[in-house]
Amino acid sequence: MIKKEKQYTIGTDIGGTKMNAVLFDGKRVVADYQLATPKDTLDHFMVMLKALLEPLEEKARENKTRIKGIGVGVAGVIDYEKNIMLNSPNISIINGVKLVEELEKITDLPIKLDNDANCFIRAESLIGAGKGYNNNYGFIIGTGIGGGWWINGEVYRGSHGGAGEPGEMIIDYQEEVGLEEAYHKLTQNNPAQLAEETYRGDVLGQKAFEEVGQYFGIAFANIVNLIDPEIFIIGGGVVEASDLFLAQSKKIMIKHIDSEESAKKIKVIKGKLGANAGAIGAAMLIT
Amino acid sequence: MIKKEKQYTIGTDIGGTKMNAVLFDGKRVVADYQLATPKDTLDHFMVMLKALLEPLEEKARENKTRIKGIGVGVAGVIDYEKNIMLNSPNISIINGVKLVEELEKITDLPIKLDNDANCFIRAESLIGAGKGYNNNYGFIIGTGIGGGWWINGEVYRGSHGGAGEPGEMIIDYQEEVGLEEAYHKLTQNNPAQLAEETYRGDVLGQKAFEEVGQYFGIAFANIVNLIDPEIFIIGGGVVEASDLFLAQSKKIMIKHIDSEESAKKIKVIKGKLGANAGAIGAAMLIT
Repeated sequence: MIKKEKQYTIGTDIGGTKMNAVLFDGKRVVADYQLATPKDTLDHFMVMLKALLEPLEEKARENKTRIKGIGVGVAGVIDYEKNIMLNSPNISIINGVKLVEELEKITDLPIKLDNDANCFIRAESLIGAGKGYNNNYGFIIGTGIGGGWWINGEVYRGSHGGAGEPGEMIIDYQEEVGLEEAYHKLTQNNPAQLAEETYRGDVLGQKAFEEVGQYFGIAFANIVNLIDPEIFIIGGGVVEASDLFLAQSKKIMIKHIDSEESAKKIKVIKGKLGANAGAIGAAMLIT
Repeated sequence: MIKKEKQYTIGTDIGGTKMNAVLFDGKRVVADYQLATPKDTLDHFMVMLKALLEPLEEKARENKTRIKGIGVGVAGVIDYEKNIMLNSPNISIINGVKLVEELEKITDLPIKLDNDANCFIRAESLIGAGKGYNNNYGFIIGTGIGGGWWINGEVYRGSHGGAGEPGEMIIDYQEEVGLEEAYHKLTQNNPAQLAEETYRGDVLGQKAFEEVGQYFGIAFANIVNLIDPEIFIIGGGVVEASDLFLAQSKKIMIKHIDSEESAKKIKVIKGKLGANAGAIGAAMLIT
């Protein structure tokens, strides 16, 4: 048997608040690194992205291991044919940007691009909380709301790459307000800070998160009544504060699921891979 | 080459208002028959179902052709393992009934059961408006609201048989009202009659259907943002009045689809097989 040369991949998860990158050996994270996501200019964004990747490339050199490529997960709608960011509501400086072309200016490594929620559910399904399940809905609660669906061993993208956007779900008919917009409003565009204040006793924060929980519960029920997954896997930066809203979400979800069998069997669990899930799933794009 | 013996199948589509049955030769409807759906007792329901099937069996005898089996499509959630109707909101007398067992009392033919919207989208996908497409969402507007999804050559059922229930979609967060409930309310539980009145000039009817159109548009957008199908195929008894609401639905749908590509490419078309679509798709259950 020929011994296979050990190789790394890099995965980076670009969110509305943080950019996270991992050096991945196929099973474990060898090194990881984080920076705040620049919001001012594309130039600054690319400089910081380069700064995020360099320590990992350095680590690989130290370990004398080749890097096969870089997978990039990013919040927003992507044109997968042209590798353009079509709509990234929480990182507006990259809207319309050919992100792969921009990255090719700062690295010679092969690059693959995917939605961040798709990366999250890929990693959690293959080596995380969804291992052993085959119909997993990833629901990302961070700066915005993202979704990714893992079914029959792959990410479902839809006929035109537009699937997996539960943040756009309208659940307030009269105001025509989508889930993400309602979430932004309720959490005053800073869910992490509001969670902190709520833990310190802020009653209004508590009420807001209860309402967030109700919104998510309705969204979960709508998803179950359409696609009936085995499990929801919850991720994103706000998952740490999920005790403020997830019980409420489950209660509301169960109430509105049409099929008794689905209501009995559906599971809502938190991801197992923590803050690195998206970056690991991005690294897994490089095969 | 051995000449294959010609065989028929029977399909019946049991809706909240009418029961429809066809004798099907694999390509065309040989004969069809309709009766009103009894709502009073299960005994009456079974007597009328027998009366619906008999003329078709008689026709097969006339043509000296064997019937292979009977496929039954019915509105509601089905436990496919136990063949029990779990929840049929518009035909409450069959709730909890083992429909296949009941049918075996009136016929010796093999019987298969499926949701009516699944039957509709199967028929329309294989020989109707969805032929040549591979990701087709059937949206049934009749006494109630049903849904069925055809992807990769088969009906998608979900992990616990609970998929395809867009009627339960909550799009009014404040009132926790589902799509079907709102539809019932707006059309005063009799959409066909309200449509008639609207065509005769009833202004309130017109307003009601505009609102119905808006509701459906939001539901379509929510479906696109989750599963991004190629086409919606609209069916059900109220499809004949769809000029009262469908233009409004399309407008609202496009407005709320997140992916530009999906918004540009999604099609909303009416079924091609008319009132027999569901019964044909039920007949196709027998293979």
